[in-house]
Amino acid sequence: MTTAAIEPFRAIVISRLAHALKAEGRSVIHMEFGQPSTGAPPRAVAEAHRVLDADGMGYWESAPLKARIARLYDERYGVAVTPDRLLLTCGASPALVLALSSAFKPGDRIAMARPGYVAYRNVVKGLHMQAVEIACGPDAHYQLTAAAIEALDPAPAGVIVASPANPTGSVIAEDELARIAEVCRARGVRIVSDEIYHGLSYVGPQPTMLRFEPEAMIINSFSKYWSMAGWRLGWLLVPDHHIETAKAYIGNLFLTPPSLSQHAGLVAMDEHEVLEGHLEVYRRNRALMLQALPDMGLKTIAPPDGAFYIWADIGHLTDDSVAFCEQMLRDTGVATAPGVDFDPVEGRTHMRFSFAVSTPEVEEALSRLRPWFAARG
Amino acid sequence: MTTAAIEPFRAIVISRLAHALKAEGRSVIHMEFGQPSTGAPPRAVAEAHRVLDADGMGYWESAPLKARIARLYDERYGVAVTPDRLLLTCGASPALVLALSSAFKPGDRIAMARPGYVAYRNVVKGLHMQAVEIACGPDAHYQLTAAAIEALDPAPAGVIVASPANPTGSVIAEDELARIAEVCRARGVRIVSDEIYHGLSYVGPQPTMLRFEPEAMIINSFSKYWSMAGWRLGWLLVPDHHIETAKAYIGNLFLTPPSLSQHAGLVAMDEHEVLEGHLEVYRRNRALMLQALPDMGLKTIAPPDGAFYIWADIGHLTDDSVAFCEQMLRDTGVATAPGVDFDPVEGRTHMRFSFAVSTPEVEEALSRLRPWFAARG
Repeated sequence: MTTAAIEPFRAIVISRLAHALKAEGRSVIHMEFGQPSTGAPPRAVAEAHRVLDADGMGYWESAPLKARIARLYDERYGVAVTPDRLLLTCGASPALVLALSSAFKPGDRIAMARPGYVAYRNVVKGLHMQAVEIACGPDAHYQLTAAAIEALDPAPAGVIVASPANPTGSVIAEDELARIAEVCRARGVRIVSDEIYHGLSYVGPQPTMLRFEPEAMIINSFSKYWSMAGWRLGWLLVPDHHIETAKAYIGNLFLTPPSLSQHAGLVAMDEHEVLEGHLEVYRRNRALMLQALPDMGLKTIAPPDGAFYIWADIGHLTDDSVAFCEQMLRDTGVATAPGVDFDPVEGRTHMRFSFAVSTPEVEEALSRLRPWFAARG
Repeated sequence: MTTAAIEPFRAIVISRLAHALKAEGRSVIHMEFGQPSTGAPPRAVAEAHRVLDADGMGYWESAPLKARIARLYDERYGVAVTPDRLLLTCGASPALVLALSSAFKPGDRIAMARPGYVAYRNVVKGLHMQAVEIACGPDAHYQLTAAAIEALDPAPAGVIVASPANPTGSVIAEDELARIAEVCRARGVRIVSDEIYHGLSYVGPQPTMLRFEPEAMIINSFSKYWSMAGWRLGWLLVPDHHIETAKAYIGNLFLTPPSLSQHAGLVAMDEHEVLEGHLEVYRRNRALMLQALPDMGLKTIAPPDGAFYIWADIGHLTDDSVAFCEQMLRDTGVATAPGVDFDPVEGRTHMRFSFAVSTPEVEEALSRLRPWFAARG
């Protein structure tokens, strides 16, 4: 075995260029990263102010927050969860490391959709497991299916499910989730379900994988729906029999998430009006994008049923999405993510827009992009 | 290969009991964890208030903080470091995961002192590497020596050096650090130096391993000297040729540390007066402990030259440190850490006191412990 090689993010290179252009006085619209441009709900910020003056902030694991997250599973999904099944993490990234390192071993085959969030593939590789990428194109609505998992030979040790997904925003229908759970149970495949985009759906509420597979490990975070990316707070939910193992792992690999973020996150969870307000903005932005893109020649896109992304086929314009996105940024000031981060095969002919910006920014971006694409069409 | 088994922290079990006793109205003194009871410097807290109102707090990597940390290496050690060699992490724990996962592979042998910080052994195991524990008793001042590393056959792939160390507070003398670097270079052993207790020394400034081995990977954190444990901020410093690999790892495994903590940490780094004030408290607490412990029959302790720990031999009283510490807690309200967390062999006859509490708390603890030990002596 050799040290694992992990590819760097190309979106970071684009983002660095975007900031450099901004420093030169250019107007830049940041659609390259998957993070809300809004901040935490005001009452969560107020709570942070209060705690800053009242708490010494040592290592801390918030029992009230774990209880509140457990209640979320009841309220949002109608699934009963005990708080001790929850492990609080510094965001979804270490939750994924925790899930994979504590439940699998080097050499294990872990299946995932392609395109998909780059860290799935890379953390699997970084832990010396084997990434089994399942090509999910337009025919599969860019998502995993039970049939695709059934067809893997031999069965993988685990599968990472993400619905809504990054970079596509595509979702897995409820009956398909149930079939995936059934196939995985039958084949002994452990499910890791990344539900970080839950709450951000344009086609109705999405069920948690727990409803279909109580043994699934669930990843979630305050970075997307709760608009608290830089606060670094997330969680991993594990089945009863895995609690002690996962606790031992988190105590050694990570310790606790930021104390202040746990206090603020607890308050954020009750700020429905603010958070649903963000969703309304995303809904408007999405509609604007969906209306404009076909006229710009971007006719093949993944169904953006959730999250805040558009995954667009640009194969009629380029086979080098990195150069394409860089040129677009230089010409228009609109920063986006080249597809190669998400799909090592099809990524050269795809790109991702994040519309988690303000509606005026989407309007401005589209007004710049229309003539730019027209000149290429 | 099977999934790795990691032991849980016993100190956490003691701490839970301590909190339960407190909830029953008992007076408890927390000497079980390695964290300052003080908070962040007031100006760092003030900066956090300012940023809370001014910044949306997305994912962020602070260039000013990296530049300031680079300057610390110049100011504190006289070693020139470029900011791009620094990776900002959510504390020292993920920095260790980052160092080990990015530089070694499953099966690699990683040497470390025994006793030592429990996560060294456990993260190595969790990543399916092999922990090579070197017994470091009174004769070796409880620390690694060049001779001990030289004697390992075959040479390990890496060694974790910690000076000052947890749980002992022992330090490695400058000439011995130089010899360790020399032996490691000659044998091709990569050094990971955990310098989290730097700044907390009672025997003069401690040099960084970088002075003797420019290729060493250095771990540090704001949790100890800067008294910001719950803010979750630390760093890993890597050699030039490892920057791109480490960046790819951190981007996938962890992303960025908390934005607010990066802002506050930058301010904390200039709060010398407050921080040196903490050190004066520790110095007084240490003197009180060192004066009292021998009279209580604790005559064999590691030289507490740094950090804020006393590692004491209690072999004349027990061979079950877990039961011993629990009984002490129940009888006196003084919570401490049983040795088994730090030394799977000698730990049953050792315990660790943390004196990072207030001086009145140390005085009160000692006044409770004197009669308790006298009754056993």
